[in-house]
Amino acid sequence: MTDFPTTDPRLSFDDRISVDCVVFGFDSDRLDVLLVKDHGRIGTCGLKLPGSPIYENEDIDNAARRVLFELTGLDKVTMRQFKVFGEPDRLSRDPEELSALEEDMGRPVGRMISITYIALIKIDRTVADNLNRENASWVPVSEVGQMVFDHNQILEESLVRMRALLRQSPDLLFALLPKKFTIPQMRKLCEAVFETTYDPGNFYKKVSAMPHVVPLDEKEAGGAHRAARLYRFDRKQYIKIF
Amino acid sequence: MTDFPTTDPRLSFDDRISVDCVVFGFDSDRLDVLLVKDHGRIGTCGLKLPGSPIYENEDIDNAARRVLFELTGLDKVTMRQFKVFGEPDRLSRDPEELSALEEDMGRPVGRMISITYIALIKIDRTVADNLNRENASWVPVSEVGQMVFDHNQILEESLVRMRALLRQSPDLLFALLPKKFTIPQMRKLCEAVFETTYDPGNFYKKVSAMPHVVPLDEKEAGGAHRAARLYRFDRKQYIKIF
Repeated sequence: MTDFPTTDPRLSFDDRISVDCVVFGFDSDRLDVLLVKDHGRIGTCGLKLPGSPIYENEDIDNAARRVLFELTGLDKVTMRQFKVFGEPDRLSRDPEELSALEEDMGRPVGRMISITYIALIKIDRTVADNLNRENASWVPVSEVGQMVFDHNQILEESLVRMRALLRQSPDLLFALLPKKFTIPQMRKLCEAVFETTYDPGNFYKKVSAMPHVVPLDEKEAGGAHRAARLYRFDRKQYIKIF
Repeated sequence: MTDFPTTDPRLSFDDRISVDCVVFGFDSDRLDVLLVKDHGRIGTCGLKLPGSPIYENEDIDNAARRVLFELTGLDKVTMRQFKVFGEPDRLSRDPEELSALEEDMGRPVGRMISITYIALIKIDRTVADNLNRENASWVPVSEVGQMVFDHNQILEESLVRMRALLRQSPDLLFALLPKKFTIPQMRKLCEAVFETTYDPGNFYKKVSAMPHVVPLDEKEAGGAHRAARLYRFDRKQYIKIF
């Protein structure tokens, strides 16, 4: 396991720079994003993207991995550096939250730079069991409300980037799907990611012709009358095509 | 013209964060990168990637555009945010240069974060005439020597990214070529970018079949016996295909 440093904000490299993580997960029929509670606003409790200062002797990528690890127990996820957000007024556009932050830090803050990361993970039982529920929760992307500062903008732009990533490297789709998945699950994920709808019959025809989507001799648990067949992703077949 | 702030390091947002720019240009038969003199090392004068602190009220993207503008007079170039370099030891791995920098800044520096950008430009007459020759020069990518800190690594990684960008969006190739170019020029550029060689005959056949590479009724100046025909890039045709 990666040896992450203990949390000690006194060790921050520079308190004007942070990492923020957009962690996407797929919850069998909806695309979720991992959010944490924000105690900034007095009297209310909003949600925000998980983030952290970078510690003095810590790599930036590692700071992002640490954020994910502290919330989910996962330590082997690819964290893709996405974009730096640092407009001079990105904090002052949300004056209420800025005052709360300044009160917290005991000094004027002014401007902060956020180095953002994107991660795609499977919300399987391990992840669900290890989730730090005190702080973190999965929220459907379509139901995310107003977040602090420019976090809604960061989420919007990372969705655009995720779509581009998935078009370039369709195998990343399977980073979100369970190891064994049904075609309707795959369709719902594609619909959520690309914000569209697909005809179930056509989608089935297209996907079942993909040599890297391999049918298993198993059906979805639950014992429904028409339980859907399970499939798995075959990377070797995928590499042959792409 | 964009209204860039005047150079005043006292206005830096945070002297532990800078932008550094990898500006690629094509000089009719070689791929160049724009480097500036580094006066850091006492007694010697090396080269480095052009960079700057970010000013207090300046967007990060704008800081990168300002760096390019100050060196070339160009203000409409797309600057692509590439990657943040900020390993804790990225400066201390070059102790000689770090001492020079610390002497310059009058205090210990420790760690700095560099937000890097990639730009692709045409080295045409305007650019050549406006180049701030006091500080800047075009250097063939294949001949870049040892630069300060991790600048060689930044250049290497940005070459990899540029190749990926050009594979995804082949039209970016024409951002580097002159408005009127010959097929051998295009071949040399592809060879330099992808670090390979192409058979001239096959390359010609392939390119002249591309509807977005349009032959002109003009030949290369110089009056050589077998002057090569000039071509132009047709974006409308390109958009039809891609």
